[in-house]
Amino acid sequence: MRTYDIIKKKRDGYALTNEEIRFFIDGYVKGDIPDYQASALCMAIFYKGMNVDETTALTLAIRDSGDVLDFSKIRGVRVDKHSTGGVGDKTSLVVAPIVASLGVKVAKMSGRGLGHTGGTVDKLESIEGFKVDLDSKTFIDIVNKVGIAIVGQSASLAPADKMLYALRDVTATVDSMPLIASSIMGKKLAADDDCIVLDVKTGSGSFMKTVQESKQLASLMVDIGKKAGKKMLALITDMDIPLGYAIGNSLEVKEAIATLNGNGPRDFTEVCVALASNMLYLAGHGSEEECRKKVLSSISDGTAIKTFENMVTAQGGNAKWIQNPELFPTAKFSREVKAEKSGYINRVDAEGYGISALLLGAGRNTKEDKIDYSAGIILSKKTGDYVKEGEVLATLYTSDAQKLDSAERRFIESTFITEQKPILRPLVLDKVE
Amino acid sequence: MRTYDIIKKKRDGYALTNEEIRFFIDGYVKGDIPDYQASALCMAIFYKGMNVDETTALTLAIRDSGDVLDFSKIRGVRVDKHSTGGVGDKTSLVVAPIVASLGVKVAKMSGRGLGHTGGTVDKLESIEGFKVDLDSKTFIDIVNKVGIAIVGQSASLAPADKMLYALRDVTATVDSMPLIASSIMGKKLAADDDCIVLDVKTGSGSFMKTVQESKQLASLMVDIGKKAGKKMLALITDMDIPLGYAIGNSLEVKEAIATLNGNGPRDFTEVCVALASNMLYLAGHGSEEECRKKVLSSISDGTAIKTFENMVTAQGGNAKWIQNPELFPTAKFSREVKAEKSGYINRVDAEGYGISALLLGAGRNTKEDKIDYSAGIILSKKTGDYVKEGEVLATLYTSDAQKLDSAERRFIESTFITEQKPILRPLVLDKVE
Repeated sequence: MRTYDIIKKKRDGYALTNEEIRFFIDGYVKGDIPDYQASALCMAIFYKGMNVDETTALTLAIRDSGDVLDFSKIRGVRVDKHSTGGVGDKTSLVVAPIVASLGVKVAKMSGRGLGHTGGTVDKLESIEGFKVDLDSKTFIDIVNKVGIAIVGQSASLAPADKMLYALRDVTATVDSMPLIASSIMGKKLAADDDCIVLDVKTGSGSFMKTVQESKQLASLMVDIGKKAGKKMLALITDMDIPLGYAIGNSLEVKEAIATLNGNGPRDFTEVCVALASNMLYLAGHGSEEECRKKVLSSISDGTAIKTFENMVTAQGGNAKWIQNPELFPTAKFSREVKAEKSGYINRVDAEGYGISALLLGAGRNTKEDKIDYSAGIILSKKTGDYVKEGEVLATLYTSDAQKLDSAERRFIESTFITEQKPILRPLVLDKVE
Repeated sequence: MRTYDIIKKKRDGYALTNEEIRFFIDGYVKGDIPDYQASALCMAIFYKGMNVDETTALTLAIRDSGDVLDFSKIRGVRVDKHSTGGVGDKTSLVVAPIVASLGVKVAKMSGRGLGHTGGTVDKLESIEGFKVDLDSKTFIDIVNKVGIAIVGQSASLAPADKMLYALRDVTATVDSMPLIASSIMGKKLAADDDCIVLDVKTGSGSFMKTVQESKQLASLMVDIGKKAGKKMLALITDMDIPLGYAIGNSLEVKEAIATLNGNGPRDFTEVCVALASNMLYLAGHGSEEECRKKVLSSISDGTAIKTFENMVTAQGGNAKWIQNPELFPTAKFSREVKAEKSGYINRVDAEGYGISALLLGAGRNTKEDKIDYSAGIILSKKTGDYVKEGEVLATLYTSDAQKLDSAERRFIESTFITEQKPILRPLVLDKVE
């Protein structure tokens, strides 16, 4: 088998065999196949696509490129949730404790993510003492005891994905459906869960700009997961508007705590409840309606926030910060961003808000960058709201006053105020089973 | 400017600017742009193409990536000929001396070519003492004195082309019209000629399989050359049948000598006369018909072969070998390949014949391989000929008897004998001006 022939075959629009795909991934991870052949193949896949069988083969080859975990010592049904990412997306911090409080097990590994704001583990690290590097035995013990643990993703998990993603990122081959699907599912399948609920984002701030594309991606990933023996389900959720009012690590943790206490923003709560209900439903805890009721009562009776507290304690974190979120350090500098004219917020560029948060120090530009946990944005107004000229749109937070000007500019450029009131679409747009 | 944005722009089907193309080529040659980005861009160009302006910009950036020569000290009109390559293509050895004998100057640089058989300079090196590495002054002196000199292509000529070609060769991005055109013309324009005649091959043994594609490629290269201020013309010639009867270095030189003496194979002579006439015509030596007469008389009155002899002498070669080609060493081993059944040779796989010659030792598999100058094939029958079972189709020559079996097998597999007599098309299929 020759790499050249594999590239040429895909270039000319033919489907690759399982053996060809394995040969490519194995050779690439071993270093036998150079980056320049891998990037040519990715570009050919960008144009010619892959069918479901090819994409499944690629997913499983990526999964098998590193450690495949064994969660058999966890007692109970194991459910995971994966979001395709979005600005201000802290749903994991809320849905995982909710379903764990209702008897489902969540053994979650999460990436650190180079992005506008940190990943889930970065957010958790803004809690004093919280440890995201646990050995496998401790991780499983905590899941058995508390129902939930969240750790950083090990470097030995799906190394092919890390290599391919880094390559795609610099060769304009990221936005290819089979490559996105196999990247996400390759990692997910390396964990040992029974059920996976996917939160596929759609809109300006995500990979997939239209609902139709998002449904295609969701269906593809659901198919792949089922072929690999998992129970699968996907929700298509809106990413034209950041969820909630907080963007930035400790700001988002505080908003998650409020939500677990039943005092969260309406939109964010709605998406969390939908996701948690579907996780429970997939795990066999009754009809969707029954699951929804259970989720709502776990919030109102305090078991959800208690489970979160227990996890924080078990992972070395200071649970007092959860009971009293005012203990989170606040940023040294802040600035109110004011509306330059009166009108409705017709739409916002969610990605622009993310970049504004990044400019404030909430994310990483390079792997080596340190995150400023208290940096970020608290929105005062959201899409659909009416504002008067001079009214506060948002407050920016940072430890470095010099960052305020560029972040403010980016924020204003990303907010579109018009005389017309926008028509808002539902937050949960569709479901794929 | 970011390489990523250039790749993405081409990926999405937009035309690149001259500045973007220069940025890419300059960065690639300097090592600032890695192979994996270059191969992704080549694959995007494979799918999305380039318009004439882009291809011209790419050609000129390739030309300017290394030394651009100055032939101003050569007296008279300088004409070059370039062939897109083919099995048994020794036309340069014949047309260059012919036109030089008629007062046109040919300062030819030729590649060594990794391929089935050696390039033009490899063929010339099969002549005892012939030197292809001349310093620039000696080269120009010989052109002024004899009218012609042929040297190896300097490594400092169009390095971007060498890098890109090596990359395209292993990433399935060779057969892209703008990449082929810019590769050929980038090198050609780095030399300082007034007129260029292109011999664009069409058929199974060449890049372009159809006459229509070959005409497109020819038109593109003619346009690029004209934009760069050259007088341009292209002939589309057949490559379904190897030219002449000889394949292999010294075998081809001997056939070229016979042709310069007026005793060459009809097909090969016809193509050489057409190319030489058009070179002369482009250089302003009268109408095409007048040029044709001059070419024919330079063969019949012996001035063509005399010019070849003078060049050999000037470049250190033993001119006695030209006067008496029996002095060329012959291969130690030979084998007659016999027809397995009676019938017409309906078609041959010219590339298969080339590979057979390569297996005999006539070409290089890797840059380090040494060429066996006397290895190769002499055909006894060609497409359209009738053969009886057991009749000799060809004779294989090599210095290594072990190579005969595989070469013979390949030769037989590449020869298709049927009851039906094929209809042969003209050798010169079209002309692009």
